[in-house]
Amino acid sequence: MHEKYIRRAIELAAENAGQGRGGPFGAVVVRNGEVIAEGVNLVTTALDPTAHAEVVAIRAACGKMGTFELRGSTIYSSCEPCPMCLAAIYWARLEALYYGASREDAAAAGFDDGFLYEQIPLPAAARTLRTGRLLAEESGAPFAIWRANPAKIAY
Amino acid sequence: MHEKYIRRAIELAAENAGQGRGGPFGAVVVRNGEVIAEGVNLVTTALDPTAHAEVVAIRAACGKMGTFELRGSTIYSSCEPCPMCLAAIYWARLEALYYGASREDAAAAGFDDGFLYEQIPLPAAARTLRTGRLLAEESGAPFAIWRANPAKIAY
Repeated sequence: MHEKYIRRAIELAAENAGQGRGGPFGAVVVRNGEVIAEGVNLVTTALDPTAHAEVVAIRAACGKMGTFELRGSTIYSSCEPCPMCLAAIYWARLEALYYGASREDAAAAGFDDGFLYEQIPLPAAARTLRTGRLLAEESGAPFAIWRANPAKIAY
Repeated sequence: MHEKYIRRAIELAAENAGQGRGGPFGAVVVRNGEVIAEGVNLVTTALDPTAHAEVVAIRAACGKMGTFELRGSTIYSSCEPCPMCLAAIYWARLEALYYGASREDAAAAGFDDGFLYEQIPLPAAARTLRTGRLLAEESGAPFAIWRANPAKIAY
């Protein structure tokens, strides 16, 4: 059963790569045996560097369900998610992840997935991205306002 | 000068938390001294778990510039980006990142940023997210199609 959904994700990825709509990646979100959303990589056509297949599928699934979480749903991706998509999967509270190709396969095709998995755990000073911290004191204010707001919706 | 933009990001975060539109986070994208886009956390109101301030600001900046990359631009965030947003910053090819609060500040307010920084580098079997790999062989097909497509746009 898992294979059916991964196969659909691979099919979406192949179609997308052939049509030149975006990178060779596809994903589907499944709930109770039903595909509730599909996504393909649309970075270069939607002009959105975050429009990876998994993110597109998660956004579509949440839109369809009218929720900001997907507890109890599973995501199937044609390829191992990059760190952005993996973290998005956690934030969406998805129950499980199944994927086909590996981050090494993606790297061999010219994508930065493997590089990003190396960068994320590094201390900021060791990353290639120039990073600085400022106004540490003042930046606590929004959290105090958040804590004090009785209408806040945690996520 | 950096302080001016971080202060604006903090101001956005505070407004957002006070209005209950979403989490206490704000971000701005700056190019040549001009703010080209702003973003606030809209997870619970846009029903999009990926609508963190940085992602919202990156998407808005790309939309405004008509590009899928933001080379030469800098992002200022009221708080250290979570791994999803940090990876999005890399994918957007932003030149630099400045932030105010830390992942520990976010964790203290109930957000998963610190936890996600622990999870991402782990082997899949050691993560809390149930993960499996299937159809490794078949999943290479989209990459072959991608390589063979002369019209592909790399990113």
